[in-house]
Amino acid sequence: MPELRKDPVVGRWVIISTERARRPSDFRPDPVRTGGGHCVFCPGNEGETPPEILGLRSPEKPPNGLGWSLRVVPNKFPALRIEGSLEPEGVGLYDRMSGVGAHEVIIETPDHTATLASLSEVAVTDVFWAYRERIVDLKKDPRFEYVLIFKNHGEAAGASLEHPHSQLIATPIVPIMVLEELEGSAGYFKKKKRCVWCDIIRQERQGEGRVILEGEGFIALAPFAPRFPFETWILPTTHRSAYDEIGPEEVRALAGIVGGLLQRTNRVLTDPPFNFMLHTAPLREPPLDHYHWHLEVIPKLTKVAGFEWGSGFFINPTPPEEAARYLREAVP
Amino acid sequence: MPELRKDPVVGRWVIISTERARRPSDFRPDPVRTGGGHCVFCPGNEGETPPEILGLRSPEKPPNGLGWSLRVVPNKFPALRIEGSLEPEGVGLYDRMSGVGAHEVIIETPDHTATLASLSEVAVTDVFWAYRERIVDLKKDPRFEYVLIFKNHGEAAGASLEHPHSQLIATPIVPIMVLEELEGSAGYFKKKKRCVWCDIIRQERQGEGRVILEGEGFIALAPFAPRFPFETWILPTTHRSAYDEIGPEEVRALAGIVGGLLQRTNRVLTDPPFNFMLHTAPLREPPLDHYHWHLEVIPKLTKVAGFEWGSGFFINPTPPEEAARYLREAVP
Repeated sequence: MPELRKDPVVGRWVIISTERARRPSDFRPDPVRTGGGHCVFCPGNEGETPPEILGLRSPEKPPNGLGWSLRVVPNKFPALRIEGSLEPEGVGLYDRMSGVGAHEVIIETPDHTATLASLSEVAVTDVFWAYRERIVDLKKDPRFEYVLIFKNHGEAAGASLEHPHSQLIATPIVPIMVLEELEGSAGYFKKKKRCVWCDIIRQERQGEGRVILEGEGFIALAPFAPRFPFETWILPTTHRSAYDEIGPEEVRALAGIVGGLLQRTNRVLTDPPFNFMLHTAPLREPPLDHYHWHLEVIPKLTKVAGFEWGSGFFINPTPPEEAARYLREAVP
Repeated sequence: MPELRKDPVVGRWVIISTERARRPSDFRPDPVRTGGGHCVFCPGNEGETPPEILGLRSPEKPPNGLGWSLRVVPNKFPALRIEGSLEPEGVGLYDRMSGVGAHEVIIETPDHTATLASLSEVAVTDVFWAYRERIVDLKKDPRFEYVLIFKNHGEAAGASLEHPHSQLIATPIVPIMVLEELEGSAGYFKKKKRCVWCDIIRQERQGEGRVILEGEGFIALAPFAPRFPFETWILPTTHRSAYDEIGPEEVRALAGIVGGLLQRTNRVLTDPPFNFMLHTAPLREPPLDHYHWHLEVIPKLTKVAGFEWGSGFFINPTPPEEAARYLREAVP
C-alpha cells in the first residue's frame, strides 16, 4: 500500500509508492515503448487495461470494446490507491497518511502515431472536455482535495508509453505548488484587490513581446520568469478559478489554442519532449477572486541539476521574449 | 549580461543566462565529455581555465601551473557574472535585477578517473575544506547573500565534464528552498524551543531503521520523506547553522562519512549519477538556533515528470527504510 509522508521542515509531501521499482536492480533505463511493439492503449487491446471509467464511442457500442475515440482508464500501476480511508497518523515528529487517491490515464485517441498537435480540433476538444468530466466526477469523492491533470510526452519528459495519453492524479492533500500559488495570489489580492494573473494578462497585452497568440477567450504567453526555455502558459482571458466551470464553447476555443501552441512548439523545436500541467483551484474551494486557472507547458530541453535541486532557482538560457518571438513567427 | 527575474505569484527567482544555449537549434543532447578526449581540468591544461582563485600545491610552485592537488577556478560559462552592481528594478508588476554573482568550479583532484568515493580521505578533506575557504572569502563581498555548493556527477545528473569537480554559485538572493527551510524550522523552534534537525537526529537514533552510518560528530541517514529513491542526508550531530564554522578536525570526520556513504551508494547502485547540495545558513545571518546545516545527496535514478513539476509532490518508489538497509549492509 502506498503511503503519503510529510517533510517535517518544509511541509512537502511525498508519495512512497512501492507499486513500481524499489530494489536497487530495478533502476535501469526505461525507454519509451515504441509503435513497433505491442501497445496496450491501441484499439483491439481494450482488455489489457483496467475497465474503462469513461469512453467516447457511439451509443450502440459496448464499453471496453472497439469503436472508441477516447478512453479514460485507471492506471495499471497507480501511484496512489483508490481503496481505503485516509488514516492520518503522527510518528514522533513525522506525519504520514495512507496513500489514497486516484490515478487515471486519458487515452487521447485510438491513433498510436497522433499527437495533440496533429489531432483535429474536435478530438483535442474531447480530451479537454474529458479532463473536466473527470474533475467533476472525482469532486464527489469527499476524500479528495485536488485533481492534477498532466501530460508527459517523450521519454525525456517521463513518458513510458508512446501512445498519446495524459494522466490525472487525485490527492487527499492540496499540492504544495498550488498552495504557494494560492498564498501568493491571495497576498496580491489583499493589497491590490485584483487577480495577479488578470494583471499579468493586462500587462502582457501592452506589448513587452511575450504574447504568443490569442484565441477566443484564451491567451498563450511566455511568462516573465520562466523556469525552462520555451516554457509557455495558456490562460483564460476572463477570470476563472476552477477549470471545471469551463463550458462546451470555451473548451473548443481552448483546444484550438493548445493545438496551435503545440504545433508552433513542434515547428520551432522539432517535436520536443514536453510536460504540461493544469493548475486549477482546489476541489473544495468556492469560486475564488484571486486564483486563475492556467495550463503550464514545459518542453524538456535542459537538465535539472544540483543547483536547481538545492536552491529552487532555475537557470534558463532562453529569454522568454526570444522564445515568444520564435513561437509567434513559426506559422504551423 | 544575465538577469535575475522573480515570478510575481510564487516569488521564485530564475536566472535568465544567455551565456549558454539560447536558440532553438542549440538544444541538442550534450553527453559528458569522456577521458578519451581532451580535458581542460587535467594537469598540463591549467592555461585553458580562467586564472585560479585557489590552488593547493607546494609553496615553491607558482599558481596556474603543474603540481596541484586541487584547484578552484571561475566557471568559463558562468550562470551569473561577477562584475557589476545589483540594480533591482520594477517593470510593472514584475521584479528584475542584474545577474550578479559568482560561479566557480572546484577541481577536486588532478586524477581524471578518480571520484569522491575513490579519493583518499585526505584528498576529500581538502575538497570540503576548500568549500569552507570559498564561503569565508565570498562572504566578504557585500553583494552576496548566499553561497550554494553543489555537485553534478554523471551526465543524467547534469554534469557536462567528466573530470571530478564540484561547483558553487554565490547569489544576491537567498534561494527559495533555503528560505522555506528557514521558515519551517523557525516555526518549529517557536513552538518547541528546539531545532527540528536536532530532533530528527534524536528520533532517528531511536531506531526506525533510517540511519545508515555514524562517524565522529556526523550522521548519514535516509530522510523520512525523501523526494528520490536512495536520497540521503549527512548532518553534524552537534547543532551548527553555518557550514563555514567547521574546524579542521571536523572536516576530516565529514570527509570520512561522505566517502563512506558514496562508496556504499556506488556498491548498491553501481556508480549512479548523483547530485549533492550543501544547505547552510545565509551569509548575513548570525549563528541560528533553528537552522542546522546539512548535505543532501540525491542519486539520479528516476525521471521527474509532469506530476512532480505541477504539484511539488514527488513519487518515490523506494521506502527510505529499505534504502537505508541496503546502504547499511553494503560494506565498501
